[in-house]
Amino acid sequence: MISSLKCFFEPKSVAVIGASEKPGTIGRALMTNLLERFKGKIYPVNIKYDQVFGLKCYKSVKEIPDEVDLAVIAVPAPVVVNVARECGEKGIKGLLVISAGFKEIGEEGAKREEELVKVVEKYGMRLIGPNCLGIYDAHTGLDTIFNPSDRQAKPEPGPVAFISQSGALGAAVLDWIAITGIGLSKFISYGNAADVDESTLIEYLAEDPKTSVITCYIEGVRDGRKFMNAIRKAIKNKKPVIVLKAGKTEHGVRAVSSHTGSIAGSYEVYEAALKQVGAIVVDELEDLIVAAKVLSWQPPARGNRIAIVTNGGGAGVLATDAIERSGMKMAKLGQHTIEKLRSVLPLAASPYNPVDILGDAPVERYENAIKITASDPNVDALIVITIMQSPALNADQLRQRLKAIREDIDKPMVMVAPGGEYTEKHSSKIEKEAKIPVFKTPEQAVKAIRIAVEWGKILRKYGLIG
Amino acid sequence: MISSLKCFFEPKSVAVIGASEKPGTIGRALMTNLLERFKGKIYPVNIKYDQVFGLKCYKSVKEIPDEVDLAVIAVPAPVVVNVARECGEKGIKGLLVISAGFKEIGEEGAKREEELVKVVEKYGMRLIGPNCLGIYDAHTGLDTIFNPSDRQAKPEPGPVAFISQSGALGAAVLDWIAITGIGLSKFISYGNAADVDESTLIEYLAEDPKTSVITCYIEGVRDGRKFMNAIRKAIKNKKPVIVLKAGKTEHGVRAVSSHTGSIAGSYEVYEAALKQVGAIVVDELEDLIVAAKVLSWQPPARGNRIAIVTNGGGAGVLATDAIERSGMKMAKLGQHTIEKLRSVLPLAASPYNPVDILGDAPVERYENAIKITASDPNVDALIVITIMQSPALNADQLRQRLKAIREDIDKPMVMVAPGGEYTEKHSSKIEKEAKIPVFKTPEQAVKAIRIAVEWGKILRKYGLIG
Repeated sequence: MISSLKCFFEPKSVAVIGASEKPGTIGRALMTNLLERFKGKIYPVNIKYDQVFGLKCYKSVKEIPDEVDLAVIAVPAPVVVNVARECGEKGIKGLLVISAGFKEIGEEGAKREEELVKVVEKYGMRLIGPNCLGIYDAHTGLDTIFNPSDRQAKPEPGPVAFISQSGALGAAVLDWIAITGIGLSKFISYGNAADVDESTLIEYLAEDPKTSVITCYIEGVRDGRKFMNAIRKAIKNKKPVIVLKAGKTEHGVRAVSSHTGSIAGSYEVYEAALKQVGAIVVDELEDLIVAAKVLSWQPPARGNRIAIVTNGGGAGVLATDAIERSGMKMAKLGQHTIEKLRSVLPLAASPYNPVDILGDAPVERYENAIKITASDPNVDALIVITIMQSPALNADQLRQRLKAIREDIDKPMVMVAPGGEYTEKHSSKIEKEAKIPVFKTPEQAVKAIRIAVEWGKILRKYGLIG
Repeated sequence: MISSLKCFFEPKSVAVIGASEKPGTIGRALMTNLLERFKGKIYPVNIKYDQVFGLKCYKSVKEIPDEVDLAVIAVPAPVVVNVARECGEKGIKGLLVISAGFKEIGEEGAKREEELVKVVEKYGMRLIGPNCLGIYDAHTGLDTIFNPSDRQAKPEPGPVAFISQSGALGAAVLDWIAITGIGLSKFISYGNAADVDESTLIEYLAEDPKTSVITCYIEGVRDGRKFMNAIRKAIKNKKPVIVLKAGKTEHGVRAVSSHTGSIAGSYEVYEAALKQVGAIVVDELEDLIVAAKVLSWQPPARGNRIAIVTNGGGAGVLATDAIERSGMKMAKLGQHTIEKLRSVLPLAASPYNPVDILGDAPVERYENAIKITASDPNVDALIVITIMQSPALNADQLRQRLKAIREDIDKPMVMVAPGGEYTEKHSSKIEKEAKIPVFKTPEQAVKAIRIAVEWGKILRKYGLIG
């Protein structure tokens, strides 16, 4: 089952059906994307042309003299079934159907989709789509996202996979991920999920050596049991599965049905089942990014006792409130820790949690306070708040030290740095070099650390960590 | 009472006690800030110097030959009471005490603070602080925030006032506000609130012609009744008061007490009272920015029926879910609206709410859909979602049209544009030129529109709109 998806991610040759040089067409965008980075063979197919971008263009896939692993189909919906049949006859293994005009448009489209599936089954092919953006594989360079490159960035290669039932939203999130520094393994927009669905993809990613974190935007689940099994498999391989499920409300469910033609079942039922199996269910779009960042950069937490180190009292109070309200706990520092903190901090500082190292704290004071606090066995995770506007804090030096400190600590650690341009610049450098997520607000940092805590809890439940 | 605060915001002359040229000192930062933008007279005071930045430096305020409206005091805590007494003898009206070492450090400091207040009362002065950053008035240029300007930006002049019990957090938020395009009237960090407290400041701002939105970060309220009255006064002048209260939890309350020495009472009691009087209570730091943006740029909503126009189905579903979960309603579009939408939209589009104008929507289709939807009497507010990665959407043209559309619609309207660099650039231009808040996620936009709905409800409750 899963090995049959290999044709989508590691094809040696790709046919582009609907290939074109005509500006503004999807066929052109597909061709330019593939020509830019894809290492395998590319076969343009279009009844209208003899050549596309200097490559011989075929009237039909059946004319291509060599073996073809994957066909990317971007022709009008009424033609798709016939094209798929030809692909079957040619012995092509995978179809990626970008064309819209299927189940999502109503009865006529649903019928068309049924026919397409019949053809796919008859020839033993696999199908991603229809009504999707397809695939972006950051490692192999396979890229069927046809948005213009000046307005659609693609993330660097890395460990996070992202599957999305929505194409446009998926692409937008991908563009967003690109500026966060989160590395991507594979992005798959699977649209109407006529054949390959969310469960099959998660199963595949569970075995994919390039992927260690799986994120999903899902509107309707085709087979609940299969979905839970796929998630279980990923977790057993120590890969967290983060799920943002749309269609949580009555009107949301209706909107889903006119979008991808899916049926979004009762959200409460899904949510309970997902949490039971160990998925990390997030509530908002931004949380998908937050979760991907913290789980790809930081270890899971062994408990829910959080410590705060801050140079700003107010931000420390807000973080404290957010921790208590999140169901986690403020760590009670041990006597030994408090004494050690006292010995390195000024008299006016607070050696209790939140550890307030005062507004005039230089980098060295941060270093001491973080190391002492993190080594307390009563502390499971750390939030470090830096008000970077402070004249006492050298942000470049801070970053260098944090990178070293980070390597010494096996507990999750996230940072808070509210501010403008200067702060954003340094936050982004810290993320890039030290792989510590930096958030603008205490509440976001608490959300992030909560995900590391939740992931630790799931791993313990599965008996995968002590 | 309130007129006595004039010396803080419109002083003709300011004495800087602790003035210095020594790099890294607060005294130097205060002097350079004032010299840069303040139009009135500046008198440096420091026993050690004869001149500071070319200005005659006085040993004591009592030596200054002219009248002084405001003294900014940045000398060590043990000296402050004596300095204050001299200010009183000199006839100075306002003291802004930046120095820390008062109530927030415990018993000794509390005693010192009591003495300071006695002196202030004896001479009929007013006091802001101690333990504060002081004032930034974007209109007059009075600026006592001593962070280095390369790491601490200040917002442009505008309608939003921000008062903060925390200095460091306040300055960081100010720096953040500077990149959002939100215009500022006054920022006041009031620290320990020994004399001038949050209530007095809100009362003052309620009458301040430069201020039309009041935002507050508050740890402890000194006098609940006075606070509620001040808020009531602001609302009667059609100025919303947005409150972020820290110290919501048991540990948060404890952290507050070691920060500004305040006593944070039961949050539930405060929250209920604040909501009852008509304050807009926000839960997280980011919401303070969101609320300031939407209330300074957009009109209040006349009801809670929200319509969505989108070129991305997935983002439309997420927005729908967020609206339903927020307690607002998805507007039920009238038959006339649906027919008009049908006449301008492609067949595959959805003329129901969320109005899905499809991924290939050009600017003209947006324009038609927004105008038709906004003019439906069943719609109180609008969320416009733009997936800007779409090749069909010309973002420059969109911005120009939105600016014109905005002027025609008297309902609040916010936008959603998830993405990376290209999207951020265009979102920020739309905010700057059209004054429509643009958020990265549907959930943030729903939060924003909810604030416009809440503000409308408060105004109706006060009988200030129909």
